[in-house]
Amino acid sequence: MYSDIQFAGDRPVSMQVKDYMKRLMITGALQANQKLPSTRELSLLMNVSRNTIVTAYADLVEEGFIYAVKGKGNFVTQSAGGFAAEEGGGKQLDWSERINDMARTAEEHDLMKHGIRAKRGAISFTSIAPDEKLFDLHNVKRAFLDRMSLEGNIILNYGYAKGYKPLIEFLMRYMENKGIDLAGKDMLITNGFTEGFDLVLSALGKRSGHALCENPTHHTAIKNLKMHQFAITGVDMEPDGISLEQLEEKLGSQEYDLAYLVPSYHNPTGIVMSHEKRAETVRMLNDRQIPIIEDGFNEELRYSGAHVAPLLAYGGNRNNGTIYLGSFSKILFPGLRVGWILADKELIDYLESVKRARTIHTSTLDQSLLYQYLHNGNFEKYLKRAKAEYKRKYELAVESCKTYLPLKRLSGDGGLHLFVEFEESFSTRELLQASTEQGVLFTPGDIFYTDGGGRHTMRLGFSRVSDENIVKGIQIIGDAAKVILGR
Amino acid sequence: MYSDIQFAGDRPVSMQVKDYMKRLMITGALQANQKLPSTRELSLLMNVSRNTIVTAYADLVEEGFIYAVKGKGNFVTQSAGGFAAEEGGGKQLDWSERINDMARTAEEHDLMKHGIRAKRGAISFTSIAPDEKLFDLHNVKRAFLDRMSLEGNIILNYGYAKGYKPLIEFLMRYMENKGIDLAGKDMLITNGFTEGFDLVLSALGKRSGHALCENPTHHTAIKNLKMHQFAITGVDMEPDGISLEQLEEKLGSQEYDLAYLVPSYHNPTGIVMSHEKRAETVRMLNDRQIPIIEDGFNEELRYSGAHVAPLLAYGGNRNNGTIYLGSFSKILFPGLRVGWILADKELIDYLESVKRARTIHTSTLDQSLLYQYLHNGNFEKYLKRAKAEYKRKYELAVESCKTYLPLKRLSGDGGLHLFVEFEESFSTRELLQASTEQGVLFTPGDIFYTDGGGRHTMRLGFSRVSDENIVKGIQIIGDAAKVILGR
Repeated sequence: MYSDIQFAGDRPVSMQVKDYMKRLMITGALQANQKLPSTRELSLLMNVSRNTIVTAYADLVEEGFIYAVKGKGNFVTQSAGGFAAEEGGGKQLDWSERINDMARTAEEHDLMKHGIRAKRGAISFTSIAPDEKLFDLHNVKRAFLDRMSLEGNIILNYGYAKGYKPLIEFLMRYMENKGIDLAGKDMLITNGFTEGFDLVLSALGKRSGHALCENPTHHTAIKNLKMHQFAITGVDMEPDGISLEQLEEKLGSQEYDLAYLVPSYHNPTGIVMSHEKRAETVRMLNDRQIPIIEDGFNEELRYSGAHVAPLLAYGGNRNNGTIYLGSFSKILFPGLRVGWILADKELIDYLESVKRARTIHTSTLDQSLLYQYLHNGNFEKYLKRAKAEYKRKYELAVESCKTYLPLKRLSGDGGLHLFVEFEESFSTRELLQASTEQGVLFTPGDIFYTDGGGRHTMRLGFSRVSDENIVKGIQIIGDAAKVILGR
Repeated sequence: MYSDIQFAGDRPVSMQVKDYMKRLMITGALQANQKLPSTRELSLLMNVSRNTIVTAYADLVEEGFIYAVKGKGNFVTQSAGGFAAEEGGGKQLDWSERINDMARTAEEHDLMKHGIRAKRGAISFTSIAPDEKLFDLHNVKRAFLDRMSLEGNIILNYGYAKGYKPLIEFLMRYMENKGIDLAGKDMLITNGFTEGFDLVLSALGKRSGHALCENPTHHTAIKNLKMHQFAITGVDMEPDGISLEQLEEKLGSQEYDLAYLVPSYHNPTGIVMSHEKRAETVRMLNDRQIPIIEDGFNEELRYSGAHVAPLLAYGGNRNNGTIYLGSFSKILFPGLRVGWILADKELIDYLESVKRARTIHTSTLDQSLLYQYLHNGNFEKYLKRAKAEYKRKYELAVESCKTYLPLKRLSGDGGLHLFVEFEESFSTRELLQASTEQGVLFTPGDIFYTDGGGRHTMRLGFSRVSDENIVKGIQIIGDAAKVILGR
């Protein structure tokens, strides 16, 4: 005892002594009212200065673990003697019985738990996160220090559920610059797209219990719609976006509580919905008063072609039924959890209260850092650089797919991923098994389908794969596919 | 047009020109295919360098808002001409009809919307947030820069739903040092206490639909239990914590899905539950297999007396039914949204998936900054300083209450607030009205009661009130109370 203490790292030594002594009390090695070694004795046993022990003992007194008796020494307090563990009841709970269907659905559809894991050294096309090598840390540090000097105290104390005001003002203008009429609209800052989506689904009343979306669509959206017990109706994709004939047909056969749409660089197909389809889709859904949840996913990653306005821009201030969910997480710093909801004022007012009840507010540090970074003009410069980099990878990936893959259709108009369709009878799960053996991973497309389809499809995320590995990896996948097809 | 541009602040001028031009296109002042002024013309009109205009035009091309025709100039693209607003449907939604009961409950119980607002210059005892003047910004900056230098790229990209590993390891050890046996337990990092509480309530299955808690209790807990449609049964408080007789009686009359308890510096009464009551409460609830949600609220703010272990420590590793929710938000930087859940491994595994589905993960920046700050030993030093400061205010507030208030009972064993009970017939709402007129605010106690009681009580938060104003404010409240009592 005592002489076996091991000092590690850069944590102050007196605190390590304090922690060590606490452990002895809590585990019962030191009992209630037992006398501690004198500071001189302990300093010799632990081989540290006596001052260090004096500090540690003072802290233990301060924290109520020991008490000092003048002229006699230090003693363990009654309640610190590790005896709490000996009391209390004994019956254990079976948590698997206590969990509800929502939590079970979340667990079952948790790709991080049940998805494919890349081994070290593997070439993985499963990620569509940004490439962290592009992050301009210097400007992030500057933005942080700028903001801290201006109002450090305010940033570190409680903020507002709606969000950090300067950031809201900046993003409102940013959205206005995409063509959105802000009259009658308001904004709520969220912890990224995902929280925004969950807040909206949580707050909407159920009527029919049915939700519309593109088929295939974002896996997280399918998961969250299921967690909220919506029945999902998917509408097939065409090269310029959702099939309007099928949308018309499905709208005729059923009532819907909401439609979830990803008009730009759609996940997983990478398709950009055309201007004409956007106008028509908004019209059809507005006419039936079906709320649209618009996922502004990767809207910023346009490599060519003209600007297309978000769905929320269509109909101007008459369109109060579209809820725009924005985020820079696929481009800029997803470790900072910041997204936004731009929608009708009345809806935002309710969502603000739900947000407050759930997480009080989004980290003010994240928000203020992001604001300062945007305000400094760093984002636009970063985006230029990132787009140049991703565009090169995109073109390389397209080229490689065309060269090496025995595919039927390739889609992806920009963004960070491509979508590949093989012939209908082909199984990308089988292909994944074969390519994994050769150290190459991708995301099988079936997880994005609302109807169990897509077994012949796959998504290739290239943002975090090197140029060399993009070519090499796609070639390996292609070779494996040809072997399977040749059987 | 053009010459009316107003440059503001420190945003790069070329970006301000770009924003201005975008607005003209979006509002329709510039129509599709219309020719833009030449760079030379515009530079004269806007009184900026021609290079600035060249940069702005290049950016507009890049973003797809304009296109260049060699030798002819720059033109507005087809889809940027503000015509999205003219399309789309016209039928508007009535959001108040679409909102569900949960969202409505959140809005109705939203104190930030419907609570008391302090006017400028008022003395307000409504806050129990930390005093930001105590924040050691220097060490926060250092922690940030330390962590950014070590792994800036990693911190800014996606992290794990469970949390930032070094922080989890630190907090696990921190909790162990409070006497908790970690065998069979695991931790999930959350966006503060509130998210932790909401995650647990969301994931627990409903059986009886009844929840137990102290009466009075934390207002947010009442709100969130109601949002999750639990019927609430309150158990009265005694000077050493919850009434065990009443607990026994209420346990006999009804089944419960969970108990929510605040054993230390209970909100709003400030009472610390005794060791004996902790042991007995855990035993009673464990025996009936009722999950305990333990709110570790302000546990760190002990000014005197011996250490008392958290409920989760009682019963050691046999106690798998207690869920500990921790946070430093009432002491340290609530603007950083970080809290933790320490509970049975199996439960944490489900909660991790729910957390991932809802917010992906808590800000890695917040987590890593907090970790580094803790690791550097700053927290313990800060806590010493903060406790000295709050203890002084606490003693001053106790003294002032005893001197000036015609009270029946005063409670609060530490922490950042006191709880005052007047005689039963007294109305603190009436008192609040009178004291507000004299510029002094407090929180009427009725909002903390589960049964409509507490109209003769109030909570006084002193953390953000100066010494001078503590005395002055309580004296004003006392004088107003005496006037009401004398009528």
